[in-house]
Amino acid sequence: MSRKNILYAQSGGVTPVINASAAAVIEAARARPDEVGRVLAGRNGILGVLQEELIDTAELSSQDLVAMTQTPGGVFGSCRYKLKGLEENRREYERLIEVFRAHDIDIFLYNGGNDSADTALKVSQMSREMGVAVQCIAVPKTIDNDLEGTDNSPGFGSVAKYVAVSTLEASLDVKSMASTSTKVFVLEVMGRHAGWIAAAAGLAQRQPSDPPHVILFPEVAFDEARFLAAVEQAVEQHGYCTVVVSEGLHTADGKLLSDSGSTDAFGHAQLGGVAPVIAGLVKDRLGYKNHWAVSDYLQRSARHIASQTDLDHARAVGKAAVELALDGHSGVLAGIQREADEPYRWTVRPVPLEQVANHEKKIPAEFLRADGYGITEACRTYLAPLIRGEAYPDYGADGLPGFLSREFATLARRLANFTA
Amino acid sequence: MSRKNILYAQSGGVTPVINASAAAVIEAARARPDEVGRVLAGRNGILGVLQEELIDTAELSSQDLVAMTQTPGGVFGSCRYKLKGLEENRREYERLIEVFRAHDIDIFLYNGGNDSADTALKVSQMSREMGVAVQCIAVPKTIDNDLEGTDNSPGFGSVAKYVAVSTLEASLDVKSMASTSTKVFVLEVMGRHAGWIAAAAGLAQRQPSDPPHVILFPEVAFDEARFLAAVEQAVEQHGYCTVVVSEGLHTADGKLLSDSGSTDAFGHAQLGGVAPVIAGLVKDRLGYKNHWAVSDYLQRSARHIASQTDLDHARAVGKAAVELALDGHSGVLAGIQREADEPYRWTVRPVPLEQVANHEKKIPAEFLRADGYGITEACRTYLAPLIRGEAYPDYGADGLPGFLSREFATLARRLANFTA
Repeated sequence: MSRKNILYAQSGGVTPVINASAAAVIEAARARPDEVGRVLAGRNGILGVLQEELIDTAELSSQDLVAMTQTPGGVFGSCRYKLKGLEENRREYERLIEVFRAHDIDIFLYNGGNDSADTALKVSQMSREMGVAVQCIAVPKTIDNDLEGTDNSPGFGSVAKYVAVSTLEASLDVKSMASTSTKVFVLEVMGRHAGWIAAAAGLAQRQPSDPPHVILFPEVAFDEARFLAAVEQAVEQHGYCTVVVSEGLHTADGKLLSDSGSTDAFGHAQLGGVAPVIAGLVKDRLGYKNHWAVSDYLQRSARHIASQTDLDHARAVGKAAVELALDGHSGVLAGIQREADEPYRWTVRPVPLEQVANHEKKIPAEFLRADGYGITEACRTYLAPLIRGEAYPDYGADGLPGFLSREFATLARRLANFTA
Repeated sequence: MSRKNILYAQSGGVTPVINASAAAVIEAARARPDEVGRVLAGRNGILGVLQEELIDTAELSSQDLVAMTQTPGGVFGSCRYKLKGLEENRREYERLIEVFRAHDIDIFLYNGGNDSADTALKVSQMSREMGVAVQCIAVPKTIDNDLEGTDNSPGFGSVAKYVAVSTLEASLDVKSMASTSTKVFVLEVMGRHAGWIAAAAGLAQRQPSDPPHVILFPEVAFDEARFLAAVEQAVEQHGYCTVVVSEGLHTADGKLLSDSGSTDAFGHAQLGGVAPVIAGLVKDRLGYKNHWAVSDYLQRSARHIASQTDLDHARAVGKAAVELALDGHSGVLAGIQREADEPYRWTVRPVPLEQVANHEKKIPAEFLRADGYGITEACRTYLAPLIRGEAYPDYGADGLPGFLSREFATLARRLANFTA
C-alpha cells in the first residue's frame, strides 16, 4: 500500500490553540511513517491551496512543533475566504482538486468552523464525482463555540478562561476603588450571534454578589430601562457593577448597538465597539463614573492563559483527524463527545459533515438565567471543565513567550496560476 | 521599649501587585514581634483613616497573606482622594493625627504614587509640629512608573509584561490573517502624561520587522500625515501593522485625541478611547480593515501574568518600609535603586520625600527613537529586567485564581465622626 499524503489548512478566525491542532496533525502523521508520506500545509489557508502555495511541514523539527503548540495565531496563515456554492463557483472546487492531484494529496484536513465544515463536505463530494479519492476531515476550531457535532470547539475554552479570569481581576480593581472612583465597569467580548464567550464570564460569579452582575447576550434583546435598573441595583447592593457585553448585542428590532455600517469579506456587518455605547448610556442616565474595555483580539490570542482542557482538545482533534483518515473515514468532523461532566470525561468521534455544515449552535434557553443577565447552573456545569488547568507557554530569558514565528518557503508550483 | 503600632493605607489606582506590598508589610511586622504591636489598615485608603474605619490585620492568617500576595486590586480598598495643601485644609491633617493618636499609631506606611508621597511628607511634618512622633514612610506603587526616587514603581513591571505579551500575541493573530482580513491593529494602553506603558510594548519588537510597528507616545505630538505614512509603510513592508497608542496621545496644540466629540447610536457623547479614533482614521484615510482593543483595567489588574521581578520589588519595598521605620527613619520613600542592568541587581534604600513628592518622571528623550514611534536600545536596557519571570497565582480546581476577596470588620471607633 502506498503512503498517503496529507494537506492541512487553517480557516477563518484563528485561536490561541489552533496551532496545537496543527502540531498534533504533524506529530500523528510522523508517528505512522509507514502510512503517511508528506504533510503539506496551505499558506493562508484555502487561498494557499487555490493558489498552489503549499508549505512542506517536514522542515519543522520536533522542537519547532513544541513551540508551535504554544503559539497563538495561525503559523501557516489563515484566511477569511468562503467558497461559494458548487453551482456558483464550480471552478474553485475543481481547482482545489487539481491542486490535490498535482501534489498527490490523499487526505485534506480542514481546521475551521461552520463554513469550513461546509467546504470540506463539498470538496469530499466533488472529489468523488471527479474520481479523485480525496478523504476530507474537518478539524473543529472556533472561539465562538457555535459549531455543531462537537461538545465544544477548541479555542473556546481558552478564550473562556481569559474572559472569566479578566472579569474577576478587573472587578477586584473596580471594587477596591468604587467608594471614590469608577462604579461601573463594562467589558466587551466577542460573539456575534452566540453569547458563549459572554456566558463564560459568568464562571467568575461563584456567589450571587460576585461579578459579573450583568451579562448582555446577543440572544437577549437589549432593553435599556431594564438594563439600567439592573445596573443601579448592583451599584446599590455591592457598591459597584461589572457588565460583560457581547459584541453582537442588539435591540428587539435587530439593530446592533455597535452598528457602524461597514461589512467584512463574508458580508457580515463590521462591528464597532458596543462597550463605549453601554458605558455612555450608564453615564448619561445614571451618572455613574465608569470605565470600559474592549478585549478584541487580545482575548482571541491570549495563549499565555490557555486552558489545559482546551489545549488537550485541540491536540486530540488534530491527532484524531489523521487517525480517522488512515482508518478510511471521509466527510466527517473529528468531534468532541462529552462522556461525563464531573469528573469531566470525553472522547473524539467521527461526525458526518452533513450534521455539522452551516449549522450554528446557539446557547440553549435553559443556560440563560430567567432575567437574561446571567447563566444558570446547567450552563456552569457545561462550561466549568472547559477552563480547567493552565497550559502556560515557555518564556524566554527576556520575559516573553518563545512563540514560533517563521516565514515558510512554498513548494515549487506544478500548475498554472489560478484566477477565480 | 514599648512596641510600635503600624497603620498601612493604599492610595490611588491599584496595581496587580500592591497587595504583595501589603502582605510583605504584615509579614515583616510579624517577623519582629518584640518591636511591632498591631498592624492596622485603612479601609479605602486615607479616607478610612479620616473616617476612623480601621481594619486589624491580625485576622489574616499566613495562608491569607499568601493569597493576598497573589490578588490584584486593593484588598483593603483604595481611593482617589488628594489631601489639599496644609494652608487650605489643616483640619484634615489634624484629623489624621488625632486618629493616629487615638489608636496609638507610631508608624504610618502610605502605599502610593506622587500625591501619596506628598501626603506622607506633610503628615510627617505636621505630626512633628503637633508633638506626636509618627514616622511616615512612603511605599512606592504606580503602574504609570512616573514616581521619582525609585528606579521603577512596583506595579509597572507587571503591566509592562501584560502589554508586551498581549502585543506579541495579538500581532501573531493579525499577521496570520492579514492577507484577507485585518491589516491594522490598534491597542490602547494607559498612561496619561508619561508613555512608560506604551514603551513597554516596544519590548515585543525584537527585530525591526516585529510588532509594534508604531508606538504613539503622549510625549510626542500626534502628526496625522506622518502617522498615516508610517502605517502605510508597515503594511506594505510586513503585510500588516500593529499600533500601540497611549491614552494620553495629543496633538501639538494639546488636544487629546480621545476627546473626539463623536456620538454613538443613541446620540450620546462617546466616552474616551483613543484606539477607536486612531482606527477610524486609518480606515478613512488608508482604507485598511482594522481592529482595535482598549485594555483599560484589564492591564492594571492582570495578576495572572505578573512579572516576577515586579512582584519581588513590591514585596521588597513593603518589607523595607517596616524595617526603615524600625530603624528610626521617617519622611522617606522605600525606593528601588538599580545597581546593574545585566544581570539585574537592585537594592531598596530610603529616599527623602522632599525629592519625591509631586515630581513626575517622564520618559527621557534618549529612550525615544528618533522618529518618535519606538524605543531605543537604552530604553530596552532599562525596561528589560522589569518584565522578567512569571509569578503565576495559584489556581483552584475551577480553573480560576484563588484570589483573596473578603469583607473586613473595622475596629470600634474611639473618636467622633469627622466631616471635612
